[in-house]
Amino acid sequence: MTTLTIPDGSLFGLDNLPYGVFSTPGAAPRVGVRVGDSVVDLARALGDDVFARPTLNPFMEQGHRRWTAVREQITELVSGDVPDGAVHPVGAVTLHLPFRVGDYVDFYASEHHAANLGRLFRPDAAPLMPNWKHLPVGYHGRGGTVVVSGTDIVRPCGQRKAPGEAAPTFGPSRRLDIEAEMGFVVGTGSEQGSPVSCDDFAERVFGAVIVNDWSARDIQSWEYVPLGPFLGKSFATSVSPWVVPLLALEAARVDTPVQDPRPLPYLRESRAWGLDVDMAVEWNGQEVSRPPYREMYWSPAQMLAHMTVNGASTRAGDLYASGTVSGPEKGQRGAFIELTWGGGEPVGVNGEERTFLRDGDEVAISATAPGTAGGRIGFGEVRGRVLPATGAGE
Amino acid sequence: MTTLTIPDGSLFGLDNLPYGVFSTPGAAPRVGVRVGDSVVDLARALGDDVFARPTLNPFMEQGHRRWTAVREQITELVSGDVPDGAVHPVGAVTLHLPFRVGDYVDFYASEHHAANLGRLFRPDAAPLMPNWKHLPVGYHGRGGTVVVSGTDIVRPCGQRKAPGEAAPTFGPSRRLDIEAEMGFVVGTGSEQGSPVSCDDFAERVFGAVIVNDWSARDIQSWEYVPLGPFLGKSFATSVSPWVVPLLALEAARVDTPVQDPRPLPYLRESRAWGLDVDMAVEWNGQEVSRPPYREMYWSPAQMLAHMTVNGASTRAGDLYASGTVSGPEKGQRGAFIELTWGGGEPVGVNGEERTFLRDGDEVAISATAPGTAGGRIGFGEVRGRVLPATGAGE
Repeated sequence: MTTLTIPDGSLFGLDNLPYGVFSTPGAAPRVGVRVGDSVVDLARALGDDVFARPTLNPFMEQGHRRWTAVREQITELVSGDVPDGAVHPVGAVTLHLPFRVGDYVDFYASEHHAANLGRLFRPDAAPLMPNWKHLPVGYHGRGGTVVVSGTDIVRPCGQRKAPGEAAPTFGPSRRLDIEAEMGFVVGTGSEQGSPVSCDDFAERVFGAVIVNDWSARDIQSWEYVPLGPFLGKSFATSVSPWVVPLLALEAARVDTPVQDPRPLPYLRESRAWGLDVDMAVEWNGQEVSRPPYREMYWSPAQMLAHMTVNGASTRAGDLYASGTVSGPEKGQRGAFIELTWGGGEPVGVNGEERTFLRDGDEVAISATAPGTAGGRIGFGEVRGRVLPATGAGE
Repeated sequence: MTTLTIPDGSLFGLDNLPYGVFSTPGAAPRVGVRVGDSVVDLARALGDDVFARPTLNPFMEQGHRRWTAVREQITELVSGDVPDGAVHPVGAVTLHLPFRVGDYVDFYASEHHAANLGRLFRPDAAPLMPNWKHLPVGYHGRGGTVVVSGTDIVRPCGQRKAPGEAAPTFGPSRRLDIEAEMGFVVGTGSEQGSPVSCDDFAERVFGAVIVNDWSARDIQSWEYVPLGPFLGKSFATSVSPWVVPLLALEAARVDTPVQDPRPLPYLRESRAWGLDVDMAVEWNGQEVSRPPYREMYWSPAQMLAHMTVNGASTRAGDLYASGTVSGPEKGQRGAFIELTWGGGEPVGVNGEERTFLRDGDEVAISATAPGTAGGRIGFGEVRGRVLPATGAGE
């Protein structure tokens, strides 16, 4: 038997216990829970085959009561002795995409971000569209290109047309960007024709991850009228490997900013699901931004209620992201297009003036929140490196 | 042994052989092929377990060479005697969603439709956006709400704001509409970072279905800026139960309309994949439109090349639809918003003046094309009935 030690101040204490999918040499991917700097093999430790699967989906489908029970089981297990062979150092395992993604939806829930992008993309119009304060604006993205942290990102090619150019040209994106977001993973699906209310959020949503919604701004700005972003986003979306259970986020729950006008009844929460999550963006190892999730105008419960109010069904593994997290200050902006004001105001990165991503650049987004034990818990990070365009398709 | 008889003039002759998933009382859903008015149980007739599955995905994943070989096997089989118990009258089986949907993309490839909607949604601007003739405009829809023909459609609720109203209200859509489209089913997926060229279309795409992309126009027109349609579409998308193999559409292949300006190289086809498919829309049993697919500006091969040119991967079961098929004539428009010009010019249906869908209305969209045997082949139909809003979520 092994006794787990959790380093002082660890972001992965007993009040966190995030789930992931990991593998070790010669063994198939399976579900693990992170405790301190260790990964506990749950199939082995708990003897339950639902954890011997390569995704969290079968476990998530078992529902909220079961999530609570397993969390108690794990707490008991890791407080005592864990069977030999069920504990691996986190540095010795490979982490995989933790869930099979169903539908992927991306919202646009930061007022600061939406107003900044409005000013940049539509300088002659009001920064916010008339609908923005009435509903959480969102759209569907490509579920099949969601990848786990650490996956390299090949610079996308596509049609780009700068304002002064007569016709579009084809080639690698010249304005490759990031979007620092939080993502929410549906655990218990809902039937077609059965909207999920705001207050059912915690019953349905299993947990949260960090999302980097890579964005090719030049492709996006040419293609996006009138049906929205498509190829400017669909080449890759990265998520962090650890799904932090919503059960671990009770101490992070805060009010959302004042919502004026008052939302329609289906968007009202008995108690708001704002989240006091601190995010940080590192560009080639240097911190360039600290987006505050607590500034988000719409809560993830409101996003889920909106997404299903028309009767749309949900499935275990559906992922919906918040949209770029930006605060009111310049150093709190979660996308480089905002941080550098469309490329016009470079930021210093390791002594260089930088605007958009160059080949070889690496971005890591991390996040922490208050835990229920008085300290903080971590989401880990989502990391990705930009590789040169392959030129295929030209 | 049973000898199959194919009625004279059947749209399901030996030059069609579409695949579906069917069940009979007490037996699990499995793959069948339609011949005349019969469904042949392929697992039983060919003794191959890949057809004993509830979706076409495992068979589609086997690739183009295998699709060709199985088509030859089936032709041989149904020309002779078929094992007893492997043949069912089509009226005696239940038809299911034939494939597990991965990502769902909806294009906007009819110039007539895009121009009509431009005039209706943005009366003060040019009907086509500047990008429209440079790329097949498209966006992601909700894969999880794709349903098979015959599934009832509950009228969606949502936020609606008419031009004269000060604020949005919540309630059932008052402008529920259809969109008659063709959909293309990816059979062999492609890797992230590996664009699919136009000329690889037939290697990758397994077949085609009819699509009804139900649309709540009042929800859509309020929500769609700036990120595109979302809840106005995501409540349901219906597909026909038979997937007509691309191998059956050789005689339907025609040129696309002249494309001016000339598309960028990645959108050029050695030989165009326009399709001479005749569609028909019935509203409560009365034909109200005959959309001509051959009028579509962009081909499905160009759509696939565009969708992947940024390196986005594809999977077996990915569905992409053409967008509403509308021809130049009024009687060729594939959506009621166009057919009735925003509701201002009602059409006569069974003696009534009609604009948008009422509860209890039923819409059936059918399609046929030239077959390789000199006659025509059928796609069957996609049918759906509108049920009243449930009021849930209000």
